[in-house]
Amino acid sequence: MRVLGIDPGLRNMGWGVISVDGPRLRHVANGVIRTAGDGSAQDLGARLSALFRGLTEVIAEYLPDAAAVEHTFVNKDAAGTLKLGQARGIALLAPAEVGIAVGEYAPNAVKKTVVGVGHAGKEQVQHMVRVQLPGVVFNGPDAADALAIAICHAHHLQGRKLRAVDLRRGVA
Amino acid sequence: MRVLGIDPGLRNMGWGVISVDGPRLRHVANGVIRTAGDGSAQDLGARLSALFRGLTEVIAEYLPDAAAVEHTFVNKDAAGTLKLGQARGIALLAPAEVGIAVGEYAPNAVKKTVVGVGHAGKEQVQHMVRVQLPGVVFNGPDAADALAIAICHAHHLQGRKLRAVDLRRGVA
Repeated sequence: MRVLGIDPGLRNMGWGVISVDGPRLRHVANGVIRTAGDGSAQDLGARLSALFRGLTEVIAEYLPDAAAVEHTFVNKDAAGTLKLGQARGIALLAPAEVGIAVGEYAPNAVKKTVVGVGHAGKEQVQHMVRVQLPGVVFNGPDAADALAIAICHAHHLQGRKLRAVDLRRGVA
Repeated sequence: MRVLGIDPGLRNMGWGVISVDGPRLRHVANGVIRTAGDGSAQDLGARLSALFRGLTEVIAEYLPDAAAVEHTFVNKDAAGTLKLGQARGIALLAPAEVGIAVGEYAPNAVKKTVVGVGHAGKEQVQHMVRVQLPGVVFNGPDAADALAIAICHAHHLQGRKLRAVDLRRGVA
């Protein structure tokens, strides 16, 4: 199966696709959809539209079976949180529009799954993503974050599957 | 021309369409797109998808030439602001996807244009919407708000047009 990870942002929307074959993970592709603008509402609509089309293209090209989005809050100001919410709405909408279920993970949950500790730094996360996806080249830090989210989701989906097997065997 | 007003919300997305013929405004239609859910991310994707499709249907049915969205902040907590941002992203995306420019007004600007004062109450706004759109029946308070936003945008577009005429005449 293929898993799409998305690191939502209005300016930089990171994405990463991995393939999952049992315990084996493989890098498929990663990138960043960039939008720039003057912050007006008219312009904002066009930027959200560009993000939606960009993500829809990624989904059409790499055909993921599952998707996950990072669940971040910007607490410093309401305007920043509102902007992030708008970008995040698009990140949730694009997979939902083609019937792909979207998981959601707090940044600490992603770090905990990928590195083993919830307070890991960016470099540590990127190092462990490289270890788990040999040969990967990041198209920027937002794409690396998106791959980490995809790995996190893959591990959780595997765990869910293992639990389901356990249940069928009457172990759990 | 026809103007679509949108009062964004994840649970209740109000919309209202008016027609503008010089200084004459006329009510066309109003309604609310409702979504309910348990707040999970998976469910959130489906709700945003329902809002996007609902708004896209409204646009396809009433063919507005312009659209406007209320610019509100939820300052009480970041989670509420993030949710509003997601709904607002959809409200901006749906018109942008079909090339309709989207205006944006703070609640006080809407009240000031519709009632004359920025601190007007809900009842006062609804009263003035009824005066300006004779025979209108509101499909709930969010639909009434959406019509007020459409009226506000119509007045601003008219003002812009008048200023453009003045400029051509060399008055301004």
